[in-house]
Amino acid sequence: MAQSNPIVGDLAGNRERILEAYRVADEAGCDLVVFGELSVTGYPPEDLVLKPGFVRDNRAVLDDIASSTGDCVAVVGFVDRSGEVDPATGRDVLFNAAAVCSHGVVRSVYHKRTLPNYDVFDEERTFHPGDGTYHLNEIAGVAVGLSICEDVWFDEGPVFAQAKGGAQLNVNINGSPFHAGKVDERREMLSRRARENDCAIVYVNQVGGQDELVFDGASMVVDSRGELVARSPQYATDLAIFDVDVATPSRPVTLPITQVSSASRATSPVIAPTIAPVLDDRAELYEALVLGTRDYVQKNRFTDVVIGLSGGIDSSLVACVAVDALGAEHVHGVAMPSRYSSQGSIDDAYALAHALGIDIQTISIEPAFQAYLDMLEPSFLGRDPDLTEENLQSRCRGQILMALSNKFGWMVLTTGNKSELAVGYFTIYGDSVGGYAVIKDLLKTDVFALSRHVNDRSGREIVPESVLTKPPSAELRPDQRDDQSLPPYEVLDPILELYVERDLTAAEIVERGHDEDTVRRIARLVDVNEYKRRQCPPGVRVSPKAFGKDRRLPITNGYRG
Amino acid sequence: MAQSNPIVGDLAGNRERILEAYRVADEAGCDLVVFGELSVTGYPPEDLVLKPGFVRDNRAVLDDIASSTGDCVAVVGFVDRSGEVDPATGRDVLFNAAAVCSHGVVRSVYHKRTLPNYDVFDEERTFHPGDGTYHLNEIAGVAVGLSICEDVWFDEGPVFAQAKGGAQLNVNINGSPFHAGKVDERREMLSRRARENDCAIVYVNQVGGQDELVFDGASMVVDSRGELVARSPQYATDLAIFDVDVATPSRPVTLPITQVSSASRATSPVIAPTIAPVLDDRAELYEALVLGTRDYVQKNRFTDVVIGLSGGIDSSLVACVAVDALGAEHVHGVAMPSRYSSQGSIDDAYALAHALGIDIQTISIEPAFQAYLDMLEPSFLGRDPDLTEENLQSRCRGQILMALSNKFGWMVLTTGNKSELAVGYFTIYGDSVGGYAVIKDLLKTDVFALSRHVNDRSGREIVPESVLTKPPSAELRPDQRDDQSLPPYEVLDPILELYVERDLTAAEIVERGHDEDTVRRIARLVDVNEYKRRQCPPGVRVSPKAFGKDRRLPITNGYRG
Repeated sequence: MAQSNPIVGDLAGNRERILEAYRVADEAGCDLVVFGELSVTGYPPEDLVLKPGFVRDNRAVLDDIASSTGDCVAVVGFVDRSGEVDPATGRDVLFNAAAVCSHGVVRSVYHKRTLPNYDVFDEERTFHPGDGTYHLNEIAGVAVGLSICEDVWFDEGPVFAQAKGGAQLNVNINGSPFHAGKVDERREMLSRRARENDCAIVYVNQVGGQDELVFDGASMVVDSRGELVARSPQYATDLAIFDVDVATPSRPVTLPITQVSSASRATSPVIAPTIAPVLDDRAELYEALVLGTRDYVQKNRFTDVVIGLSGGIDSSLVACVAVDALGAEHVHGVAMPSRYSSQGSIDDAYALAHALGIDIQTISIEPAFQAYLDMLEPSFLGRDPDLTEENLQSRCRGQILMALSNKFGWMVLTTGNKSELAVGYFTIYGDSVGGYAVIKDLLKTDVFALSRHVNDRSGREIVPESVLTKPPSAELRPDQRDDQSLPPYEVLDPILELYVERDLTAAEIVERGHDEDTVRRIARLVDVNEYKRRQCPPGVRVSPKAFGKDRRLPITNGYRG
Repeated sequence: MAQSNPIVGDLAGNRERILEAYRVADEAGCDLVVFGELSVTGYPPEDLVLKPGFVRDNRAVLDDIASSTGDCVAVVGFVDRSGEVDPATGRDVLFNAAAVCSHGVVRSVYHKRTLPNYDVFDEERTFHPGDGTYHLNEIAGVAVGLSICEDVWFDEGPVFAQAKGGAQLNVNINGSPFHAGKVDERREMLSRRARENDCAIVYVNQVGGQDELVFDGASMVVDSRGELVARSPQYATDLAIFDVDVATPSRPVTLPITQVSSASRATSPVIAPTIAPVLDDRAELYEALVLGTRDYVQKNRFTDVVIGLSGGIDSSLVACVAVDALGAEHVHGVAMPSRYSSQGSIDDAYALAHALGIDIQTISIEPAFQAYLDMLEPSFLGRDPDLTEENLQSRCRGQILMALSNKFGWMVLTTGNKSELAVGYFTIYGDSVGGYAVIKDLLKTDVFALSRHVNDRSGREIVPESVLTKPPSAELRPDQRDDQSLPPYEVLDPILELYVERDLTAAEIVERGHDEDTVRRIARLVDVNEYKRRQCPPGVRVSPKAFGKDRRLPITNGYRG
């Protein structure tokens, strides 16, 4: 199982990653090495595949990989082209495909049959589903079926059809993004699928971050009784080499079958597979943020990041993630106090920076803030101070972060959480500026839980205790506290989960016993702030429904249900 | 033909719009009144339809509309639900549907068969395609087929099947967004479709702006010989009442048919249809910008907008559009000079404002700019001035615009064009701030053409001649000109068209004879600036491929083809 971390679009780099793993597997005497879904292009390639030139280049890379194969059979994901044209779009008909390669050539190709086109997935936009008769591949004397990601999730889908036609083993290649709880979901489904079909399944997932998605790896093998027999670690590249026991054929092969290799190269002793442990819930979530952030920063060729440290819990957690992702020497903190900042907040920011071993500088926003107040005085004559002046402060901070980013080439990490993003409790072009929004899919209550996790894990106070216990405040006016503008997060977050993640209407949430005025107000805030969210940077998706390509609501939206 | 302008999600408002047109049509003695695609929800409702409560509410509105119908038959678009659940998503199976209503009830329902899932369309994400046997409706004694938008574009699609089964007339309801050249495309296709099938077609489109889309109306009727016999105007709501000659049946009705009404209510004299003229290319493009802007601003309950007037051509054109969209009294200009602004530019900004009759104020950015330079001096010690200082100026302007927006409730209109957006020649959080980006889908060469159109149309110099002739400059450093950083727009724009709109690779563009270094540099700029575009406001789509939901390229993207 080659659990690798491709870069979307980086065809030459992905080829090297595949060939390097192939050489190791081949030298180890493997019969079969399996790569992830669309391993040539990286997943998801999105509209890149609408460029015919890109599809041609991807095919050339596949052929090049195939030409390097020998006795060891490789299953490689790529974009295949039928040569036909789709009448609706005038574009080439394309498939999300898996190639079976050995002895210098592509021996057979499988086309994904079930294309996910929901949540973050848009595969029907770019691909056609495979159809027609299934074909099996004889590999090391075993009748092997193929399937790609979504294919394995359906009871009477491709795994069923191929098992019925004689497959003893199904090779399922994946680009399956993480969200909380998904590792168990996958294992349960795979066990059931294997058991129902009396067919072992090799499930290989890619690993790594790609824009808002993070792929958690955890590739695995379940035997034909549904028992988990091998698993790769989460959040790390891995080449797992082991022998797997394939049941004696219990049924005749009735499907067409390509003879790829007829006997196993295996020599004794048998290499027993290992089952990597899975992380606990908090660690799993935290490591998703770390990997998502590391890959976004590094795959976009940045080395360093800058974070505005307010002394609040959001920026504290983001700094911890950044240090784990990039190393303390690549993380730069800035405290940007104003007339409304408390000394406690500044002290907390410094305490955090020192605990993490990152540099921190202080740039007061007062001169710019005062300059704006003066410049705008004639225009604002006779108007009372309001949110305008609060937003100005936040935007002064955004300006400083972006200036540091421009001058030193540091990517700004944005610190807003999902609760704030949902109700618009942030300043557009202010605290929302940046390249990557590390915790944008974490509700505030989860921000607290993960911050405690950071301290628990290391056994010391990295996030200062005062940060964990003081009431959240934006500190944009005297004695401001979040709970003056919003309900307490323990009230807000459950309502947001129902409204945003579970698509209930306000009326339905009220029926479940939540306070009507609160629900109506929150739902309205979520709706009217769509325009602000639309201009926010991407960030790691960790829930089943994140803001981003997962939730495509109109900005102009008259619904008040 | 009821060419109306719904608001997405505004079920109560859309009901009123439908019932009002229905009453007029019914009182005029119409046999049939036809509304646009998804006229109950507005098009496109996007993920709103994933809320089961929204779908229920939409059905209640449809039933309510049906209950108000009498002799006049209404065809109304709505979201239908089968009662089944999609196994892939666990969600309700939904259809993009048309209801035939009369005498208080829904008489029959048609489900759209061909769901567009490319470009800006995501219909397979939310809907299932209709299937099974077609049904016709007898309306005023005529065998009528139904189809929805995309359905009509296929040679052997629903129009063909229903005509073959006896339909003399096909009612095709649409949410068809504008792009340049589309009115003619539609007419030619409809003529061919009608002629091939010996079947008249009533094509009703919605009108109005919805986020980045603008629907241009231009509803029409072609007779069974393919002749255009009626057309509603572009860019305006319209209720066109006329008699249409339906050919005597030339073939037997072999499909099941619902008897809706058996005889025409028509009385003499015959009301002849009219054919509204279509606008010329420049006017059509300009009016698309006007309607898109008006609807985005007003449907989001803003009345006024503010525009930074630099004295350049982009902001000049945006101001012209805004005045036509909202009225001069609702448009506010701000000149924000710096140490690098020329007097000519300031004069040009004032001349434009006076020609348009809008207010204009001057707020120099110098105090804030100098404050930032001073605040950042310790951090920047030993570093030379670079793009950082240019971006700072642009962001000071963005801050001022947003402060005016916050204080006075004016929406900021963004002034960047597609050429700049493509190559990243703008400052994120600077000149890109705002609620709506009016000309984001216009290449710079089109910006010049439309600015000339504004002057030609009014026969006077609204956009000052000096603005039309001076070399474009961002004025962020002494003697700066765009062509110091970019190739001339006459070179840049054709390359962008090939790379962005036509999905060619850089290598393919070079093969067509463009300079290799230039093409490689531009392609690279387009790719690496994806992250900046992703945080830009929406704007009117007028090309076949706009930046936005039309072009979904990964930010993290290693392809350099």
